[in-house]
Amino acid sequence: MNQSSGLVVESLKELSQVLVPKTQRGKLTLEKILNAAEVEFGEKGFHEGSITGIAYRAGIAQGTFYLYFKCKEDVLRELVLYINRTIRSLLSESVINIEDRLEAERVGLRTFLNYIQEHPHLYRILQESQFVDPEVHKAYYMSFAQGYQEALGVAVEKESIRKGQLESWSWAIMGMMHFIGQRYIVWGGTHSSEDTLDEVVDSIIDLLKNGLKK
Amino acid sequence: MNQSSGLVVESLKELSQVLVPKTQRGKLTLEKILNAAEVEFGEKGFHEGSITGIAYRAGIAQGTFYLYFKCKEDVLRELVLYINRTIRSLLSESVINIEDRLEAERVGLRTFLNYIQEHPHLYRILQESQFVDPEVHKAYYMSFAQGYQEALGVAVEKESIRKGQLESWSWAIMGMMHFIGQRYIVWGGTHSSEDTLDEVVDSIIDLLKNGLKK
Repeated sequence: MNQSSGLVVESLKELSQVLVPKTQRGKLTLEKILNAAEVEFGEKGFHEGSITGIAYRAGIAQGTFYLYFKCKEDVLRELVLYINRTIRSLLSESVINIEDRLEAERVGLRTFLNYIQEHPHLYRILQESQFVDPEVHKAYYMSFAQGYQEALGVAVEKESIRKGQLESWSWAIMGMMHFIGQRYIVWGGTHSSEDTLDEVVDSIIDLLKNGLKK
Repeated sequence: MNQSSGLVVESLKELSQVLVPKTQRGKLTLEKILNAAEVEFGEKGFHEGSITGIAYRAGIAQGTFYLYFKCKEDVLRELVLYINRTIRSLLSESVINIEDRLEAERVGLRTFLNYIQEHPHLYRILQESQFVDPEVHKAYYMSFAQGYQEALGVAVEKESIRKGQLESWSWAIMGMMHFIGQRYIVWGGTHSSEDTLDEVVDSIIDLLKNGLKK
């Protein structure tokens, strides 16, 4: 990662509103609260979800909640920052030894789809944050796009892909991944053509690699 | 449009919960309510928006509202169905005389971006419907994807584009369009590379046409 991406990650951290605990016990309680909020918001949605519900699921007194967060908006924000860290590190690890960018895209797409399959609550929370906390939602995607653009830049230098307007390409590719996740994981169900998920991924990478031109 | 797409459009209509007015005056009142709801939900969001606010903006008594809708959820649903009809018909009209599919994609993307630039409230409402009325949100995109897939199918037959798994390609392309709209219209602001919107559109169509392969 170059300096600019470091700055984005730094500014993402600065968005956090959590009162960071100093003791190990405090860290465990914070983790319990975040796990509980993931289920509470994921199942009920942000507006129906409540601090009472989060405290109950975490097995803590409601007063304890306020040692860490001022309001439920702050918990949502912390969850979005957590998803950003988690997905970025999962993606980085999954493609670390892959030289070819298009192969990295394939593995990255599969990793992303697995993540939202395993964490449907978190993915819903990330999407809903758009209407609760537009600032953190935008920061999530801006930071993601910047990392993506840098990765494409490296691939251009290595001549693994062709040159282009990498910023808009990054957004386009992220959009492809998002809608594929929405259609085949979040909505799931049978595909009209009964393709497996691997076939879907192959078809997307083929589109990304070769385009539509005959 | 072939028979299957007709069925989707039919089932979309069936989702409507509005009590359809029989008189011309009733139709005008309904239109006032929908226009008012567009502003109310668009400015305040669905949860903060209220029937009182809609009635006030529409210049009608609150009792009149209930002649057309049972609740604000039903208004949101009607707006999503309205957006679906409007965008689909705008897109169809804009590409009607264009033989080449990739040129149609360019014009379609530009039409779509213009639409969300001119109707930011409606686009926000469409996105927020995901958390208020998942059924109509999903139906919106399923019907859109089906129309898209059919259009790609026609292009394959005309040998305007190559063959592929058209269902997943449709979703991927819709995702590209959505994220480009989110980044360059909804979030707007300066682009890091100071590209104009036309340059962004060109770059996306180039990616879609030729892919990333060197």
